[in-house]
Amino acid sequence: MKNPVYKLIELTGTSPTSIEDAVSNVLKRAHKTIKNLSWFQVVETRGSLSKGQVHHWQVTIKVGFAVAD
Amino acid sequence: MKNPVYKLIELTGTSPTSIEDAVSNVLKRAHKTIKNLSWFQVVETRGSLSKGQVHHWQVTIKVGFAVAD
Amino acid sequence: MKNPVYKLIELTGTSPTSIEDAVSNVLKRAHKTIKNLSWFQVVETRGSLSKGQVHHWQVTIKVGFAVAD
Amino acid sequence: MKNPVYKLIELTGTSPTSIEDAVSNVLKRAHKTIKNLSWFQVVETRGSLSKGQVHHWQVTIKVGFAVAD
Amino acid sequence: MKNPVYKLIELTGTSPTSIEDAVSNVLKRAHKTIKNLSWFQVVETRGSLSKGQVHHWQVTIKVGFAVAD
Amino acid sequence: MKNPVYKLIELTGTSPTSIEDAVSNVLKRAHKTIKNLSWFQVVETRGSLSKGQVHHWQVTIKVGFAVAD
Amino acid sequence: MKNPVYKLIELTGTSPTSIEDAVSNVLKRAHKTIKNLSWFQVVETRGSLSKGQVHHWQVTIKVGFAVAD
Amino acid sequence: MKNPVYKLIELTGTSPTSIEDAVSNVLKRAHKTIKNLSWFQVVETRGSLSKGQVHHWQVTIKVGFAVAD
Amino acid sequence: MKNPVYKLIELTGTSPTSIEDAVSNVLKRAHKTIKNLSWFQVVETRGSLSKGQVHHWQVTIKVGFAVAD
Amino acid sequence: MKNPVYKLIELTGTSPTSIEDAVSNVLKRAHKTIKNLSWFQVVETRGSLSKGQVHHWQVTIKVGFAVAD
Amino acid sequence: MKNPVYKLIELTGTSPTSIEDAVSNVLKRAHKTIKNLSWFQVVETRGSLSKGQVHHWQVTIKVGFAVAD
Amino acid sequence: MKNPVYKLIELTGTSPTSIEDAVSNVLKRAHKTIKNLSWFQVVETRGSLSKGQVHHWQVTIKVGFAVAD
Repeated sequence: MKNPVYKLIELTGTSPTSIEDAVSNVLKRAHKTIKNLSWFQVVETRGSLSKGQVHHWQVTIKVGFAVAD
Repeated sequence: MKNPVYKLIELTGTSPTSIEDAVSNVLKRAHKTIKNLSWFQVVETRGSLSKGQVHHWQVTIKVGFAVAD
Repeated sequence: MKNPVYKLIELTGTSPTSIEDAVSNVLKRAHKTIKNLSWFQVVETRGSLSKGQVHHWQVTIKVGFAVAD
Repeated sequence: MKNPVYKLIELTGTSPTSIEDAVSNVLKRAHKTIKNLSWFQVVETRGSLSKGQVHHWQVTIKVGFAVAD
Repeated sequence: MKNPVYKLIELTGTSPTSIEDAVSNVLKRAHKTIKNLSWFQVVETRGSLSKGQVHHWQVTIKVGFAVAD
Repeated sequence: MKNPVYKLIELTGTSPTSIEDAVSNVLKRAHKTIKNLSWFQVVETRGSLSKGQVHHWQVTIKVGFAVAD
Repeated sequence: MKNPVYKLIELTGTSPTSIEDAVSNVLKRAHKTIKNLSWFQVVETRGSLSKGQVHHWQVTIKVGFAVAD
Repeated sequence: MKNPVYKLIELTGTSPTSIEDAVSNVLKRAHKTIKNLSWFQVVETRGSLSKGQVHHWQVTIKVGFAVAD
Repeated sequence: MKNPVYKLIELTGTSPTSIEDAVSNVLKRAHKTIKNLSWFQVVETRGSLSKGQVHHWQVTIKVGFAVAD
Repeated sequence: MKNPVYKLIELTGTSPTSIEDAVSNVLKRAHKTIKNLSWFQVVETRGSLSKGQVHHWQVTIKVGFAVAD
Repeated sequence: MKNPVYKLIELTGTSPTSIEDAVSNVLKRAHKTIKNLSWFQVVETRGSLSKGQVHHWQVTIKVGFAVAD
Repeated sequence: MKNPVYKLIELTGTSPTSIEDAVSNVLKRAHKTIKNLSWFQVVETRGSLSKGQVHHWQVTIKVGFAVAD
């Protein structure tokens, strides 16, 4: 592809453990249907709380991947 | 799903009446194809004008919904 | 006009009732002096308060209209 | 007070009906403990969804009020 | 459609030549699968470099199009 | 003028060809009524689409010019 | 006026001395043609330099004033 | 509570170890005085440095919790 | 305190004279109830006008202070 | 380099002709002293005006390049 | 130089007295090593506090200067 | 130094493991040439992907350090 074209989609991953794990979880799921994921950027980092502790980190990312001709 | 994954899509709803009605209209349409819409956030509020009156409110929202495993 | 040129002006409308009414009020006034108002976008939504209630919604919008050649 | 000092607090109001009603609800509650609320500005407009309809509008505002000397 | 509903998708186009050409390339590709593209807005302008020259302009746009009833 | 004062106005120029041409078109029109335009900054770059091609680039700029004493 | 309407204009004031003086200078000039200036907000603070010293503070403000019925 | 009302407060947590630990530390402290913390969002991530290493991660969050009727 | 925790509050100070004086006024008031104010950042600079002159500078700041264990 | 480190610098390029030419000019100059420029992103697009025409496009970019170990 | 190229650097100046003095201090220092400083823009205004008073105004600016061919 | 002056530089660190490790890596490198690094703030968090997993976290930070008189 001489001039590649990319699509960006916005996803939110969750994890009780860490930001990195939440991103890893959402990428694992996205990879099931889109094989050529190329890059991501973190858009927002939030979380739900329970008893003064993080129940789920909620990390929203944009993921980019090349679109076939 | 232990660590749910969400997708966010961006939509613009329109209505001659109100912001709430524009959001309601776009959600009604999205619900036809996506059953588990979970939350939304207003991204932009604009409108087209005709004879000094709002012809259409145009409200852009991001809608989030859980993605199946 | 082959390549139309537009001007944007910033106005604040007010209403004791609603955001929509504040926008409607400011457009009515603008229409008195500018006949071809074309579109608007909401810039800011504020309000003054009195006894724990909204006294005036104050909605700032940008309004665009074509400029004659 | 020659040079008044104001405090701003951030609150989220909810309503199944409208943005205006969500703001009205949160102001009613704030007025119970702070009598001299002076102005507000809308910070974010979101909502929870159920069966393709808005379950609760969630409107976050900053509210300002004068602080006694 | 009385109250049209629009979807916005985010795409990145590339070109060794210019911003306009990068946008043109990505629109050409999107038009293959979506016939009624209606408007776009530039979100970000970046580029990759090679030997002190622009190798590829990378222009990210949001494209809007009406969704069928 | 020891301490010059400037006014900024917001305008949208259009062109089927390029961003530069859209800016050139809007400046040509503004120059008809304001002779001492001094500088501009690009605020937003959008466009209307037709058959998968840019119909009109729409470039919104702020233009500054000195105000007479 | 039951529901007042306001216009906001954007101006840049300059001063070799201070931000406050630049704002004061631009307001003095605006007051010559608009008598009922009501409020302002600082949009940007810049300056030109000469020999490592501020030659002119350049403060851009938005000024609001009520529009007659 | 039919239409719950939430308050958001802004806090900075610190940790020599990680972003997650800084958030955990500040939540632990907030939980001492506010039992029903509900959600948070990361506002800013900074840090102090010593000998080229992170001395303290400083993570500023907004925390939301329901306000009693 | 090994890992200090800070709270940030948002305040608006006013002064007929200058930005610095408005900040000084609001800090003086805050210091009456909070002894260990640590840092601040300017969030917004506005003002009310009367007869083409600044009546009150209104400077909104965020102030941070350590929270006791 | 297993984990490469990059530096970003901010530069403004100018051209009487186009945005692309302004970027090309600034990159040509930067390449004289930094051989491994890797990517850039457009930060701001402004221009100086003369007789209602663009005298100089002024395009500010951030340029990234790998730092040697 | 037909098409001048500028570099922007980011600096923080401090002063116990005023924003203007903090900017003046940082420019005085920068002028020691860079003779042709051309313009600046204020990026952030913060301060450290001691006993309820400003200990140091901390003003971050971007300073631009022409780069030799 | 009575009124210290600081410089801020922008750097991107990378790591296959975590955000914290990417920041640690870039600080280690910066410390080789600048001994008195004082603070940093995270500007952007991105990453490259390979086979649905994070290949490199790319964390862009601004680092501040005092400039000698």
